[in-house]
Amino acid sequence: MRVSFPFSAIVGQDDMKRALLIAAVDARIGGVMVFGDRGTGKSTAVRALAALLPSISATDAGYQDGTPRKGKVPVPFVDLPLGATEDRVVGALDLERALGAGVKAFEPGLLARANGGFLYIDEVNLLEDHIVDLLLDVAASGENVVEREGLSVRHPARFVLIGSGNPEEGELRPQLLDRFGLSVEVRTPQELAQRVEILKRCDAFEREPDAFGAVWARHERRTLKTIARGRAALADVELPEAVLIFASRLCIAVGADGLRGELTLMRAARALAALDGAAVVTQQHIATVAPMALRHRLRRNVLDETGSTVRIERALEELAA
Amino acid sequence: MRVSFPFSAIVGQDDMKRALLIAAVDARIGGVMVFGDRGTGKSTAVRALAALLPSISATDAGYQDGTPRKGKVPVPFVDLPLGATEDRVVGALDLERALGAGVKAFEPGLLARANGGFLYIDEVNLLEDHIVDLLLDVAASGENVVEREGLSVRHPARFVLIGSGNPEEGELRPQLLDRFGLSVEVRTPQELAQRVEILKRCDAFEREPDAFGAVWARHERRTLKTIARGRAALADVELPEAVLIFASRLCIAVGADGLRGELTLMRAARALAALDGAAVVTQQHIATVAPMALRHRLRRNVLDETGSTVRIERALEELAA
Amino acid sequence: MRVSFPFSAIVGQDDMKRALLIAAVDARIGGVMVFGDRGTGKSTAVRALAALLPSISATDAGYQDGTPRKGKVPVPFVDLPLGATEDRVVGALDLERALGAGVKAFEPGLLARANGGFLYIDEVNLLEDHIVDLLLDVAASGENVVEREGLSVRHPARFVLIGSGNPEEGELRPQLLDRFGLSVEVRTPQELAQRVEILKRCDAFEREPDAFGAVWARHERRTLKTIARGRAALADVELPEAVLIFASRLCIAVGADGLRGELTLMRAARALAALDGAAVVTQQHIATVAPMALRHRLRRNVLDETGSTVRIERALEELAA
Amino acid sequence: MRVSFPFSAIVGQDDMKRALLIAAVDARIGGVMVFGDRGTGKSTAVRALAALLPSISATDAGYQDGTPRKGKVPVPFVDLPLGATEDRVVGALDLERALGAGVKAFEPGLLARANGGFLYIDEVNLLEDHIVDLLLDVAASGENVVEREGLSVRHPARFVLIGSGNPEEGELRPQLLDRFGLSVEVRTPQELAQRVEILKRCDAFEREPDAFGAVWARHERRTLKTIARGRAALADVELPEAVLIFASRLCIAVGADGLRGELTLMRAARALAALDGAAVVTQQHIATVAPMALRHRLRRNVLDETGSTVRIERALEELAA
Amino acid sequence: MRVSFPFSAIVGQDDMKRALLIAAVDARIGGVMVFGDRGTGKSTAVRALAALLPSISATDAGYQDGTPRKGKVPVPFVDLPLGATEDRVVGALDLERALGAGVKAFEPGLLARANGGFLYIDEVNLLEDHIVDLLLDVAASGENVVEREGLSVRHPARFVLIGSGNPEEGELRPQLLDRFGLSVEVRTPQELAQRVEILKRCDAFEREPDAFGAVWARHERRTLKTIARGRAALADVELPEAVLIFASRLCIAVGADGLRGELTLMRAARALAALDGAAVVTQQHIATVAPMALRHRLRRNVLDETGSTVRIERALEELAA
Amino acid sequence: MRVSFPFSAIVGQDDMKRALLIAAVDARIGGVMVFGDRGTGKSTAVRALAALLPSISATDAGYQDGTPRKGKVPVPFVDLPLGATEDRVVGALDLERALGAGVKAFEPGLLARANGGFLYIDEVNLLEDHIVDLLLDVAASGENVVEREGLSVRHPARFVLIGSGNPEEGELRPQLLDRFGLSVEVRTPQELAQRVEILKRCDAFEREPDAFGAVWARHERRTLKTIARGRAALADVELPEAVLIFASRLCIAVGADGLRGELTLMRAARALAALDGAAVVTQQHIATVAPMALRHRLRRNVLDETGSTVRIERALEELAA
Repeated sequence: MRVSFPFSAIVGQDDMKRALLIAAVDARIGGVMVFGDRGTGKSTAVRALAALLPSISATDAGYQDGTPRKGKVPVPFVDLPLGATEDRVVGALDLERALGAGVKAFEPGLLARANGGFLYIDEVNLLEDHIVDLLLDVAASGENVVEREGLSVRHPARFVLIGSGNPEEGELRPQLLDRFGLSVEVRTPQELAQRVEILKRCDAFEREPDAFGAVWARHERRTLKTIARGRAALADVELPEAVLIFASRLCIAVGADGLRGELTLMRAARALAALDGAAVVTQQHIATVAPMALRHRLRRNVLDETGSTVRIERALEELAA
Repeated sequence: MRVSFPFSAIVGQDDMKRALLIAAVDARIGGVMVFGDRGTGKSTAVRALAALLPSISATDAGYQDGTPRKGKVPVPFVDLPLGATEDRVVGALDLERALGAGVKAFEPGLLARANGGFLYIDEVNLLEDHIVDLLLDVAASGENVVEREGLSVRHPARFVLIGSGNPEEGELRPQLLDRFGLSVEVRTPQELAQRVEILKRCDAFEREPDAFGAVWARHERRTLKTIARGRAALADVELPEAVLIFASRLCIAVGADGLRGELTLMRAARALAALDGAAVVTQQHIATVAPMALRHRLRRNVLDETGSTVRIERALEELAA
Repeated sequence: MRVSFPFSAIVGQDDMKRALLIAAVDARIGGVMVFGDRGTGKSTAVRALAALLPSISATDAGYQDGTPRKGKVPVPFVDLPLGATEDRVVGALDLERALGAGVKAFEPGLLARANGGFLYIDEVNLLEDHIVDLLLDVAASGENVVEREGLSVRHPARFVLIGSGNPEEGELRPQLLDRFGLSVEVRTPQELAQRVEILKRCDAFEREPDAFGAVWARHERRTLKTIARGRAALADVELPEAVLIFASRLCIAVGADGLRGELTLMRAARALAALDGAAVVTQQHIATVAPMALRHRLRRNVLDETGSTVRIERALEELAA
Repeated sequence: MRVSFPFSAIVGQDDMKRALLIAAVDARIGGVMVFGDRGTGKSTAVRALAALLPSISATDAGYQDGTPRKGKVPVPFVDLPLGATEDRVVGALDLERALGAGVKAFEPGLLARANGGFLYIDEVNLLEDHIVDLLLDVAASGENVVEREGLSVRHPARFVLIGSGNPEEGELRPQLLDRFGLSVEVRTPQELAQRVEILKRCDAFEREPDAFGAVWARHERRTLKTIARGRAALADVELPEAVLIFASRLCIAVGADGLRGELTLMRAARALAALDGAAVVTQQHIATVAPMALRHRLRRNVLDETGSTVRIERALEELAA
Repeated sequence: MRVSFPFSAIVGQDDMKRALLIAAVDARIGGVMVFGDRGTGKSTAVRALAALLPSISATDAGYQDGTPRKGKVPVPFVDLPLGATEDRVVGALDLERALGAGVKAFEPGLLARANGGFLYIDEVNLLEDHIVDLLLDVAASGENVVEREGLSVRHPARFVLIGSGNPEEGELRPQLLDRFGLSVEVRTPQELAQRVEILKRCDAFEREPDAFGAVWARHERRTLKTIARGRAALADVELPEAVLIFASRLCIAVGADGLRGELTLMRAARALAALDGAAVVTQQHIATVAPMALRHRLRRNVLDETGSTVRIERALEELAA
Repeated sequence: MRVSFPFSAIVGQDDMKRALLIAAVDARIGGVMVFGDRGTGKSTAVRALAALLPSISATDAGYQDGTPRKGKVPVPFVDLPLGATEDRVVGALDLERALGAGVKAFEPGLLARANGGFLYIDEVNLLEDHIVDLLLDVAASGENVVEREGLSVRHPARFVLIGSGNPEEGELRPQLLDRFGLSVEVRTPQELAQRVEILKRCDAFEREPDAFGAVWARHERRTLKTIARGRAALADVELPEAVLIFASRLCIAVGADGLRGELTLMRAARALAALDGAAVVTQQHIATVAPMALRHRLRRNVLDETGSTVRIERALEELAA
């Protein structure tokens, strides 16, 4: 098994890391879409987070197909391989048992294996729409419903869906985008010092992964504690009506379609508060997560070519004024 | 089993709720098409209505494939999963029995399972035309005729078909649209108070579904009683000739193609009267359901770019004048 | 079994009804194409006619696959279901017997089942050309020749093919159109009284089908007697040379391609005369059926944009003058 | 079995009838392409010719697959049914024997069945190019070579290929056209007397096929005798060098591509001479068959828009001058 | 077995005949592409050459699949039949043995059968690119590598690949063209005497093939001797450096892409010298084969529209000057 | 087995040879893309390098499927054959064992066979994107993950991926290009002396491969020693911070997207230093590999049409200044 690059050793990319932590605290947020340049460590970050999280009960991980399992297992990280066929994604008829024993058994797919963990799709815009749609459907409902080859199966499939994509290579339909809870943009860092630091850390990790891991162990433990505290506190964080009104006003001001943005904003702000150890959600929490919760849900305004992030920030300023 | 959001707790969206209630009272209306923004609670509403309705006899629900069942079961709600293959929709050869026992048995599909309940298709405009056509065919005739793989089967498939779609993502062919009985439009609410109310109810439901359900139980019982009364009264509601003439005049005035609009108008007005507890259908009933019965059946008039709803309302005013 | 709407209770649509009666009297006419608005009762009319006709000998109906059947059965009415696969249309290898007994038996398809009755295709312009072509081939020859999956079978398939279509949704190739014997156009009635009458009859039939049927029984018997008389008389109706010359002149005048129009005109006029109880075909019979026999066989004349029907009527006037 | 319309009773269409007789006398001519309007009796004529020809030895007809057959059988007439799959055209693995006895046997297809007779393809321009190509290949070599599904079979497949098509519905590639030996054009007759005569004959045949056949029996015998005489004389007809030079000059003059035109001209003129009972081919024989042998092999000359037939006739005049 | 038209009796077409002889002497030349009009005897010439060559050892011909064969067999001539499936071209799993004995045996395809002989593809531009590519790959390496259906087989497949095509019907990609060793153009002869001579020879052959073959037997023996002498001498023909320099200069002057042209030029000139009985390759040998070795490898020069052949000849003149 | 052309005997093409040697020293570089003219010896060079490398342990080569192998085997060289099906590339269900023993075993594909060696894809731009993507995925991770046909297998697949392509025949998507570690361009040499030298060496090799190999054996041993030394030294070569800064500055200056360019530059420079026997990476090493590491990762600058290589060289000059 390959050793993962430590989550804490990732240089910069604060937005992406924050979105991943929020999704780790409240899976109902519904998935994170990461836009941006190629070669900026997107899959490294997700894989690192999965490796960092505490082992989960074996009965929660994956789909057991009748056989009880005991003990703890690592948090599943499934990297959707290119060329994976649909039957392997959703599961399918178990041909071996069909041909051998003549019975119609279900053979779980990648959605089952991702249960309790992360499902990562690189270049999600290259996947066929119907597969993306299907993945989002399952991510949203936490349940995989299979109706094919004479099978009619449903099993839990609770995972955090992470997609990555380069907007220059083709966009996702708004309908699909809207169903990702959060979206972040990553850019190639332009500062010399930061880039040299990345090169040095990659070089060190590539040459001696274990030694490098030891150096970052303390940071990793601290991040882990933050997540655990956030999960525990989540249910008790209060969301005052004034903050809800502020969130609604913001959504009306930027013209987000539908109410998913508003609901996500509410959930993400509460998760952020929990991560921060705050007992009450504040306008500041709303403001912090607003770009990642709303950016991909704005209508294009042909008369105002300002980018989505700028429009959200400007609206925040006006509301605060 | 997930607890459903209560139908009565849905904020606003009166048109959609009325159309669903009418379809619940008279299934011959032929399906409801819901146009509109994403994230406006379309599937929540349909699911809520199915959960609200009284259990039905097990022999009526679904298709029993020879095995008699007893007792009561909940009203079926089938959410057509993306990627469901055609053989699972209409049913197909039972491969297990074909390979095992060498007999050609029919394995019922989703159309059979929806019998006696609701079949919901999200983003119906993304489905292939021939599947939509097939679903409408079955919804209209109440019978599923299967001619494939050497099978020749027909079984009852009486359900209310609900489609949702965003006109910006591609339109349905007029031929298909015409076969939906009713159509309604839903929009993201723009009033702050209403939006905050929605956020609060969603938050409450998400955190404590059972407590939330208890709060709304009385409203649910009242709605249920209205539907039951409507169903019982339907056969006895009178439709005076003057009202029929009014309906015909309206259809001629707005230029609806064919007679399906007129027939739907007649049926929907009678169902509405039954829901209202009225013994006789009035012009007002016709006027109330006219937009949902006719809107999707108007020809585009290139010289008069007024929207369909406005044209219907203007025609109603002129007839009333 | 659903009770059919009585053929005689159909309001208006005289052209369509006459074409169906002609095809019922002489199946060699080769099929009827019904153009027109949606929701104008096309399939209702065909279904009604099939229900009206007297039962036929069981050995004539359908294809018996070796098992002799006795007695009388209703006239077959096959409504080509959307999604019917080609193997079910033409028949195919009987998989059950192939896998079970290892023999290559033919399993008859819809063409076999339609033998002796009607085959109705809604929206024929949406079917793939090769299927339409195949259906017309079989309808013309009265025989289904199957060459597939190692099968080489031929069996009688004599039926009246009825297609419906909306010219606005895509046209049929002239080559295909030409092979339909007759074509008629149906329009949404525009008179208030007629529309209200339709609403009333539909309402009455929907609420009490049996009572409604009883009211119309006498009309149905009369129509049935007319058809029976026409069939009996057909062989003896004379076609004077002068009338043949008139038919030829008319075809030359309107510029119909090929001779199918002329042959159909001759056959349809004789069938109409038989229906009318006339012993001799007259120019008036030719004139009556000319639009339905020739309309779909005219070349488009780019310099004379007059519609096909008008051109035929004008040519009739000139010839009569 | 249906009685065929007598070949001799076909009104007009002399070119088509002559080309069919030439192909009946010398099958090496390589197939006849019939262009023209729909409904002009193309398939009727070919079917009539096949019915007219004397029975052939059963061992020559079709492909016997190992079982010797005795006696005489009618000349095969195969009308390529629409929807015939490629495996049925060329033959394929016999699945019954493969699955049953586990042996790899060849099941002959339509090419085998057409051996010794006619293969008719209606609307050849609607067939896929690779099938037409394959049919022409086999027609040219008289042998069907099958390389598929692990089979490697060759069997005789000598037949006259007749294609029909409407140039307005899409053209064949020049490469394919060139491989048809002869081509003729048929048009809807425009003379009233001729059209009325056709109507009368069709009517007479339709009502009493046997009586009609008896009336034409003497003409049929005469035609049959002509063909028999032509076949017998073919090998002995002389082709003087001067006539060959005339044929070559003509081909150079009209600019036919390649030498297939010239070779066909030579063969067709000899067959025509044999039909005429002439011992020596004359320039007049060449002139008579020139249009049908060369028409479809001319390059389009963009500066001279004269039709192919006219160019051939003009060249004949100039050479004769 | 059909008697072949004698190679020596082919009238004209010297370029094509020379290229075929060169390829017969040195198969490493890599295939011949014949461009030109249809009906100019391309396949006749290749078939004739194969028939002329001396029988080869049975163990060399084709692929024996384990069974040793003895004696001599004719040189294989494989005419790729249209509709041959890819599995028959490259070979595939032997289904009979797979289904029967349950073993995975390889069933050789046409590439195996062509081993030691000729593979002819008519209208190569109509084949799918990936098949042409595959054939050229095998022709170049002399080995067929099969990786499909769980098979992993390699066997010798040394053959001369001959393609024919009409540039007006679609061009081959430069990448594919470049991989044919030589290319020649054939045109319909325009001289009367030559055309009449062709007609006479074809007529004579068609009527009495054996007698015709006897007449040309002496010429055939002489051609055969020339080929045998060339093959024997090939390894000893010297290629002086000055001639190599001349060849390189020529390639630079005409701007041939890559070095395949240069290598082919060297090999073809040596083969030609061997055919001519020369001990040393001369500039004249280079000049003779230059058009056929380079013509299809020139870049289109948009400013100089001179044809490829003319450019090569002009460069030869300038180098010689 | 064919003898390979010696790597050292390849005339010119220094860039390509250097890139191949770097990839041979450090496989983590991630593949080499070779752009350029056809017929310039691309596959010859890769095949030659594989033949040159020392045998590897049999347990490392390929994928053993459970059966232990001993001893040494040559370095695998897999030339992806055109028409190889996806199941053969990634491996698939072993049908023989599935049908025979009824067990679901994995049958390794070409990716497994390439383990420890080279995988060469000619004309990579003609492959379907998803296959290229899949190959790059595996090349990057060194592991083949198969999720298909009910199989879920992962096995080592460490190989150097070499692609070749002609940019004129269609470009690769930037996303794919970026994932090739290095790229080089090869051109047809334009100097006469060099071309004649190539002709002479090819001629000598073609006629007497063994003798030719003997002549170059000493050069081959020297190249081999260089590679061995490089591999051994790689881990100990130092990369001073100043050189890292220089590399980062260069990437910022030319505007390479993401950080893959920078990481590749670092790795390739270290491998080059190791090949050169240097203990420390210098700016010169960076400068030498910069074009091959960055050229294919630059954004097109529409205002500065200078080629990628020129832009890199200019940036190097400015940084050095």
